Amino acid sequence: MKALRKMRPARGANLESVPVPTPGPIEVLVRVRAASICGTDLHIYGWDRWSASRINTPMTFGHEFCGYIEKVGSEVTSVKPGDFVSAEMHVNCGHCRPCRMGQPHVCQNVKIIGIDADGCFAEYLIIPIRNIWKIDPAIPERYAAILDPLGNAVHTVMAADVSVKSVAITGVGSIGLMAIPVARAAGAAKVFAVDVNPQKLELAKRVGADATFSAAQPEADGHSDRRTNGDGVDVLLEMSGSGQAIDSGLAMVRNGGVAALLGIPSDDVEINLAERIIFKGLTVLGINGRKMFETWYQTQSLVTSGRVDLTPIITHEMRFEDFEAAFALMKSGEAAKIVLHVD
Amino acid sequence: MKALRKMRPARGANLESVPVPTPGPIEVLVRVRAASICGTDLHIYGWDRWSASRINTPMTFGHEFCGYIEKVGSEVTSVKPGDFVSAEMHVNCGHCRPCRMGQPHVCQNVKIIGIDADGCFAEYLIIPIRNIWKIDPAIPERYAAILDPLGNAVHTVMAADVSVKSVAITGVGSIGLMAIPVARAAGAAKVFAVDVNPQKLELAKRVGADATFSAAQPEADGHSDRRTNGDGVDVLLEMSGSGQAIDSGLAMVRNGGVAALLGIPSDDVEINLAERIIFKGLTVLGINGRKMFETWYQTQSLVTSGRVDLTPIITHEMRFEDFEAAFALMKSGEAAKIVLHVD
Amino acid sequence: MKALRKMRPARGANLESVPVPTPGPIEVLVRVRAASICGTDLHIYGWDRWSASRINTPMTFGHEFCGYIEKVGSEVTSVKPGDFVSAEMHVNCGHCRPCRMGQPHVCQNVKIIGIDADGCFAEYLIIPIRNIWKIDPAIPERYAAILDPLGNAVHTVMAADVSVKSVAITGVGSIGLMAIPVARAAGAAKVFAVDVNPQKLELAKRVGADATFSAAQPEADGHSDRRTNGDGVDVLLEMSGSGQAIDSGLAMVRNGGVAALLGIPSDDVEINLAERIIFKGLTVLGINGRKMFETWYQTQSLVTSGRVDLTPIITHEMRFEDFEAAFALMKSGEAAKIVLHVD
Amino acid sequence: MKALRKMRPARGANLESVPVPTPGPIEVLVRVRAASICGTDLHIYGWDRWSASRINTPMTFGHEFCGYIEKVGSEVTSVKPGDFVSAEMHVNCGHCRPCRMGQPHVCQNVKIIGIDADGCFAEYLIIPIRNIWKIDPAIPERYAAILDPLGNAVHTVMAADVSVKSVAITGVGSIGLMAIPVARAAGAAKVFAVDVNPQKLELAKRVGADATFSAAQPEADGHSDRRTNGDGVDVLLEMSGSGQAIDSGLAMVRNGGVAALLGIPSDDVEINLAERIIFKGLTVLGINGRKMFETWYQTQSLVTSGRVDLTPIITHEMRFEDFEAAFALMKSGEAAKIVLHVD
Repeated sequence: MKALRKMRPARGANLESVPVPTPGPIEVLVRVRAASICGTDLHIYGWDRWSASRINTPMTFGHEFCGYIEKVGSEVTSVKPGDFVSAEMHVNCGHCRPCRMGQPHVCQNVKIIGIDADGCFAEYLIIPIRNIWKIDPAIPERYAAILDPLGNAVHTVMAADVSVKSVAITGVGSIGLMAIPVARAAGAAKVFAVDVNPQKLELAKRVGADATFSAAQPEADGHSDRRTNGDGVDVLLEMSGSGQAIDSGLAMVRNGGVAALLGIPSDDVEINLAERIIFKGLTVLGINGRKMFETWYQTQSLVTSGRVDLTPIITHEMRFEDFEAAFALMKSGEAAKIVLHVD
Repeated sequence: MKALRKMRPARGANLESVPVPTPGPIEVLVRVRAASICGTDLHIYGWDRWSASRINTPMTFGHEFCGYIEKVGSEVTSVKPGDFVSAEMHVNCGHCRPCRMGQPHVCQNVKIIGIDADGCFAEYLIIPIRNIWKIDPAIPERYAAILDPLGNAVHTVMAADVSVKSVAITGVGSIGLMAIPVARAAGAAKVFAVDVNPQKLELAKRVGADATFSAAQPEADGHSDRRTNGDGVDVLLEMSGSGQAIDSGLAMVRNGGVAALLGIPSDDVEINLAERIIFKGLTVLGINGRKMFETWYQTQSLVTSGRVDLTPIITHEMRFEDFEAAFALMKSGEAAKIVLHVD
Repeated sequence: MKALRKMRPARGANLESVPVPTPGPIEVLVRVRAASICGTDLHIYGWDRWSASRINTPMTFGHEFCGYIEKVGSEVTSVKPGDFVSAEMHVNCGHCRPCRMGQPHVCQNVKIIGIDADGCFAEYLIIPIRNIWKIDPAIPERYAAILDPLGNAVHTVMAADVSVKSVAITGVGSIGLMAIPVARAAGAAKVFAVDVNPQKLELAKRVGADATFSAAQPEADGHSDRRTNGDGVDVLLEMSGSGQAIDSGLAMVRNGGVAALLGIPSDDVEINLAERIIFKGLTVLGINGRKMFETWYQTQSLVTSGRVDLTPIITHEMRFEDFEAAFALMKSGEAAKIVLHVD
Repeated sequence: MKALRKMRPARGANLESVPVPTPGPIEVLVRVRAASICGTDLHIYGWDRWSASRINTPMTFGHEFCGYIEKVGSEVTSVKPGDFVSAEMHVNCGHCRPCRMGQPHVCQNVKIIGIDADGCFAEYLIIPIRNIWKIDPAIPERYAAILDPLGNAVHTVMAADVSVKSVAITGVGSIGLMAIPVARAAGAAKVFAVDVNPQKLELAKRVGADATFSAAQPEADGHSDRRTNGDGVDVLLEMSGSGQAIDSGLAMVRNGGVAALLGIPSDDVEINLAERIIFKGLTVLGINGRKMFETWYQTQSLVTSGRVDLTPIITHEMRFEDFEAAFALMKSGEAAKIVLHVD
């Protein structure tokens, strides 16, 4: 089979021919139909410091996909060949304290398929049966390929509990953009988007933001204040990872409000804990991955009901073989979400 | 009446003679029996930068006390002269969004008696009836005088939910010390205390800590790891305000755990948000004041049932007139909690 | 002023001329503009067993209204004459345990204006300032008059937490009907309505139900099963008070789901606790009144944003003087919500 | 091996000789050391209506036990022969909605080992690896054998959240008795026990109840009222399954309180929903099984820390072969918990 592999610790990747793997007793083999490129994949492709410290070559990367069950292990009873599936790529250990406390999404020994094991940029891949998510066949492949990042947005929105609340989203890259229709469908009263990029703010409006503010203007907080009668917003969804956005985002939240942090800062962040969190009595939530499998249920429900329309967020669809062009597009910042069709 | 007053924007305070104030229709006049010195009072006495920016002289300070109702306003029906009381000194506005959302403890327009209005270092003071807390007469005055700081400890412990969980407390000043028996009474499975001061760690053990670690030793995390089979603690109660303690405290918390922050850093704090909060899926709670009046109920219940013994924490009892010696003792760091008896 | 009063313990009511009352120091006088008739008012008018046991004549009834502040007491600072207002008519005592635990909506000593004190079927009425709710002037009087029952629907929906969940509503009288657009706006994934009355089910569809089931057909559960892939619904909102509806409603809820009970049964209800609640691990919530004032904020937000359209639910608007015709209409079952315009 | 088996649909059971079973790839074989008799086992032994409808003979019953891993399946990596273990006997399907929503303890397709498959009244039994709970070797076998029913008590107590709250327990059979020290360890401020049996009330006091009330006396509520200043209790833990106890237990709970129902009524129960649940704004929780595996962690923590002492609750220890005497003792009501030692 064909697989897009990092062959050595350096920039780039190669389309290689490798044997189709065989599933163990509690694994399945999936034939990939579509995959999507995550920011993490761009880091692996470009080989940054983080990749160098984490990735062991050679390996096949990619972790956002959909496909069909091709073969099942001897102990597998819950799916059969032909089923349309995606997968939770965080493979939890099942016996650490978070795993057994009902929090497998923050397993202390997690392995990620596509980072710590061969991923989905290939014609076939192996998934432990516990991690398989059966997809409603009514969902088109282009959407099914991006349930993983959509799940990040859903997890963040649902953890913050936006029902009948005002919400500010800082950072409207692809997950921040997805969070807008998700928040609206989950019952948000108002959704404000903040970013430095005017084009993304334009797109934010298109997918349902009630108002957008440029983070470049120092009056961003003031804007949100006027929109909320000076109360501040009930909820912040931080999706930029920028220290400055985190500070001004926290400033926007009303006393007693909630901030959910998904964006990953590359460095330490300086925070005025007293003014921004303690005196205000904020609840700050670190968000990681997707809840297994509550988030997947919610995500699928939002897509099948049509309440979340992913069309404007998938800016490009390309052939798997054109991966070089796809990675270049991602790097340019022109693309929101690129789906690669494998076949 | 006698009142301890800041007469001018400078170090020190004067015992002055002033008229006994008259309560309005929805206020009461309280005859003070005992008051306690808070770290904030020490700042006001010494006149630091914060005091200079917040306090308008002349004024009477002090906000931890107990006493007896002397006189009630025309509209007051819920207490009568002779009732034994303390008071929530955070006077909330009653009409901002947090106030009307059931979160008056983070009122956006709060005024604090003893900071923004004349306080309890006096023979009498005025309290709005809504802020009065009737005290079970079974509670001795020395304890009744410190329900306010004890309430901070109770609020922090209860917000974090310690029932059948392992708990680390960073910083065992007077509130951190109180948090130890409070956490045990609230059901904590294990309580660890961390501080730089070996005497305070000794006292921590005496009031019920299962183990203590010196923050000076770099292996503090390691210690907690060994105590929790390498899992980390379920809950951090941060009561030091030290940036380093916050960092190592967050490191001790297991993935999916909770950190409640009460200690107030004097400067911005640098945090590795990705490793300390986001990937771990932590819940971080800013804690301010006391819940009105859930915290007061819980606080009183813990004292009257005898589950929280405040004796070891009240290191000194003195006459009100000896305030200068009391402030000197507080400053020296030798005292945990000093109760001043009025008349 | 004119006031609609129960003059004696018997059927009917009289439009009487009485003096305009004078507000005390912490009260306000409100000039009523519009009032609405609740099922409870119908009971008082018709003088059923409950009325006979609770109501002391002579008294003015009515508790759903809007109007303008006419006069304020000496201690009132948060409103001024001319402000557009409604009021929470449950006057909580402020010092029982639920009151001070942040649950004043279940005060153990509650008095209800319009039941235990003179109500809003009059040109003017007195309200304690703590109970006043300032209304966004953008809300038309016809809607402002029914914020109280709408608040019951909002309280039920928000307590059950419907965000991205499937919801069944049993009983679509006026509050059940209101709950449909409220649940949708709060993020419900699907809303099913169940009733015996086909006309109400028709109206339920018009205000946004995804599907409706006749409670008369024994297969109501089966219908909901098919609609939820056999899983049952996540949430039941019980608004009928009928024992049979409660039983079949609980049967519809999936294991681990939530049932919020607002409808008031007139008699004891037989429940198979083992099968309906215990083995399923259900959470059952008794719902009373409106949270003070979280529910009012949410209610106002839903109306001003236009997400909840009350137009189809207000079936009649009449002059206050035509109260006899209005009560007759209510009794006939032809009306959903009747608004009476005063002056 | 020896196994206590129901050979036919009738009263009694036989000690039979059967082959030692072989574990599949994701199963383990456990050598049983001690087992305990549950009320359910008594029903199966006596062959009541429920047993006749659920149990397929021949089968080995029993579901409370501890033992050592004897052999592991080919895919098992998390335990090894010689490990000391017990097991969650509710085998959840893993793919129904509750299972994937993080609520496997209310799986819609659950199978129970010892009821739907061969259980632990035998020298060896098979357990799916996911259901194995490794026991801290510091726990003696007599305690390790009853972690399952202790877990029911822990689940109920923790679901109700008793920290710094007053608690009434109706029904102090073996699980109700265990709930007393569990509630105290979890932070309950006061624990009251109610039962018809004076000996059990005596035992309740011995294991830590602050006060006990006879359910036979009509003033039971009154007693709890006096004990709580007329407020009622914060939390009810219902462990009797008696309709009358449920009614008077609900009456004891304060407005806004919580009732957790574990006891299983044999018939429908008549409830005054309006007065007991709706107007009071109660939260009623159906409790089933144990949370996987949060409850097991909590249970183990309570036992190893010594906060819950099971000694007074284990009234008898006997040899496995003396099962007939043991079942007779259970039936007589003289025993609380009987542990059978196998070897």
